[in-house]
Amino acid sequence: MIDEESSTPPSTLLDVARRAGVSPSTVSRILNGTARVSEDKRVAVLAAIDDMHFAPNQMAQGLKKGRSMTIGIVVQDISSPFFDETLRGVDDGLRGKGYTSVIVSGHWNAEEEADRIRLLLGRKVDGIILLSGRISEQTVLHFANQRPIVSTGRDLHTKNAIGFKIDNEYGAYIAVRHLIELGHRRIAYVSGPPDNIDAAERLAGYTRALREADLALDARLIVEGNFHEASGLLAVNHLFDTQQQFTAIFAANDLSAYGARLCLYRKGIRVPDDISLVGFDDLPGSSYTAPPLTTVHQPLYDIGLIATNALLCLINGEAVQGTVPPLELIVRETTRRLR
Amino acid sequence: MIDEESSTPPSTLLDVARRAGVSPSTVSRILNGTARVSEDKRVAVLAAIDDMHFAPNQMAQGLKKGRSMTIGIVVQDISSPFFDETLRGVDDGLRGKGYTSVIVSGHWNAEEEADRIRLLLGRKVDGIILLSGRISEQTVLHFANQRPIVSTGRDLHTKNAIGFKIDNEYGAYIAVRHLIELGHRRIAYVSGPPDNIDAAERLAGYTRALREADLALDARLIVEGNFHEASGLLAVNHLFDTQQQFTAIFAANDLSAYGARLCLYRKGIRVPDDISLVGFDDLPGSSYTAPPLTTVHQPLYDIGLIATNALLCLINGEAVQGTVPPLELIVRETTRRLR
Repeated sequence: MIDEESSTPPSTLLDVARRAGVSPSTVSRILNGTARVSEDKRVAVLAAIDDMHFAPNQMAQGLKKGRSMTIGIVVQDISSPFFDETLRGVDDGLRGKGYTSVIVSGHWNAEEEADRIRLLLGRKVDGIILLSGRISEQTVLHFANQRPIVSTGRDLHTKNAIGFKIDNEYGAYIAVRHLIELGHRRIAYVSGPPDNIDAAERLAGYTRALREADLALDARLIVEGNFHEASGLLAVNHLFDTQQQFTAIFAANDLSAYGARLCLYRKGIRVPDDISLVGFDDLPGSSYTAPPLTTVHQPLYDIGLIATNALLCLINGEAVQGTVPPLELIVRETTRRLR
Repeated sequence: MIDEESSTPPSTLLDVARRAGVSPSTVSRILNGTARVSEDKRVAVLAAIDDMHFAPNQMAQGLKKGRSMTIGIVVQDISSPFFDETLRGVDDGLRGKGYTSVIVSGHWNAEEEADRIRLLLGRKVDGIILLSGRISEQTVLHFANQRPIVSTGRDLHTKNAIGFKIDNEYGAYIAVRHLIELGHRRIAYVSGPPDNIDAAERLAGYTRALREADLALDARLIVEGNFHEASGLLAVNHLFDTQQQFTAIFAANDLSAYGARLCLYRKGIRVPDDISLVGFDDLPGSSYTAPPLTTVHQPLYDIGLIATNALLCLINGEAVQGTVPPLELIVRETTRRLR
């Protein structure tokens, strides 16, 4: 958007209307999307906008300040419902601010992630939001020298880089404490991958809840998963194959809880009548499983919104406000008191 | 990426290696992501790449031809699992081709969709993939004069614009025929929104299957939904409230099938023992519902891959190949023979 055309006097909405042969209010309505206009008029107005390099409203003001009015978003897996919710928050955070987002994927690969950040910087984005990822905090700070960066899942507090992180340990702790309060004593755990920091923190929350209740930690009840559905199914199968005794399962995320649920269904074990089940994330689909899943609500949407607000503050040289709301347990229908 | 620096002689991998104080093979490994290197070295190499405006491999070749080596993707709802699968196909289609994708959202709003396309064109993308959307074919063709466009859900066959469309009518037809073959005669339908073309085509498939089997079309068995979970739950509730008799439900998409399933669960009605249920889409989660959902498989991943290959052909002036594979019914565990 920043090219030689920006040195010519900017076209006005009136110029566009005249060229397209429509009223200025029609141009305005097309730009704001506040009313339906005929397809012919829309095409004429879009053509005039293109021809005249017209940039409306906040975008025009931003361009005058030398800004591109775009924000780069780096996700890790474009097909994960986990990122979807956060992106919805980012989307709403940018609404009405004149900014557009462009999304790229790092595919959980540090080299690719760094490469995508370089691409965004080359495209003159005004700032970057990193949703999780593998590059180190040191590398983030290197890039933040060029443009402000806000990251989730990292602890950063410099003038160019801010991080927001949820309290995974606490989330797992309240999930397991809920099961203990319902009378459960043998609580199996389907963990995340051992090299994942979130998974390690959730395991710590599980062990703290057991310890505080004076319950023995039984390593045979902890089965490794990988945050995907199939791993939850296999983990619970393994618990039965090795003849473990348990009355409740805590899964390190909702997707593995779905897999655990399917394993129980196949074995004719009722949830929650025979076994209670708790997940972690509160994905949108978790209110519609049969039965709806008791789970730890991650404020994914809020995190997207807060990260976006923080980035706009960094870009405008304003003080950053906003903290991630605490995790909450959402009690639905997969947990019940031990009989 | 196309700026004044490209007129200076391009830096070589050797220049970068010398500046970063590492071997050329280390630079190569960092670029290709084929091996782990220390964080210090990675930071040094990335800094040297940034300083020297080094663009590797295919990207460098593309830049020489005046290309930006980026593809713009326009989705409608970044948080929908429906788009996720297609984006995974796009992602894999671009792998190893030297292209990067940037994703923007039109939010199911024609004005916003057109605005995002203008943004991408302003950023000099080499081509655009439109995933569904609301702008007319005429508007797509207008933009395709500037850069090639491939669209899903539209019928386009020009030298700059290609469309790929699935056969919704046939998909719904095979879903309902499956239920009829199992002996069902009273088959309720949870439809999509009436102004949605896919929904209208699926309704046509439902009615054809009934007609071919000489079954009467009973309008009381057709309840309007909106493709979201809650509408499936409400639709099936409505069927019970109005005391309809039925032994099977066809839902216009998987999300509304999940809602239908939850309604049946709440009423203590077993699936498939009491009522059979079929969805449409085959979202990744549908193999892990309890029980796993019988549904029409939309080749969302393949469509993303095929659309991407077609766009690369248009960009390179090559003949476009590839057709969308036919829809298939995936029989899982929510349908059974009528007793």
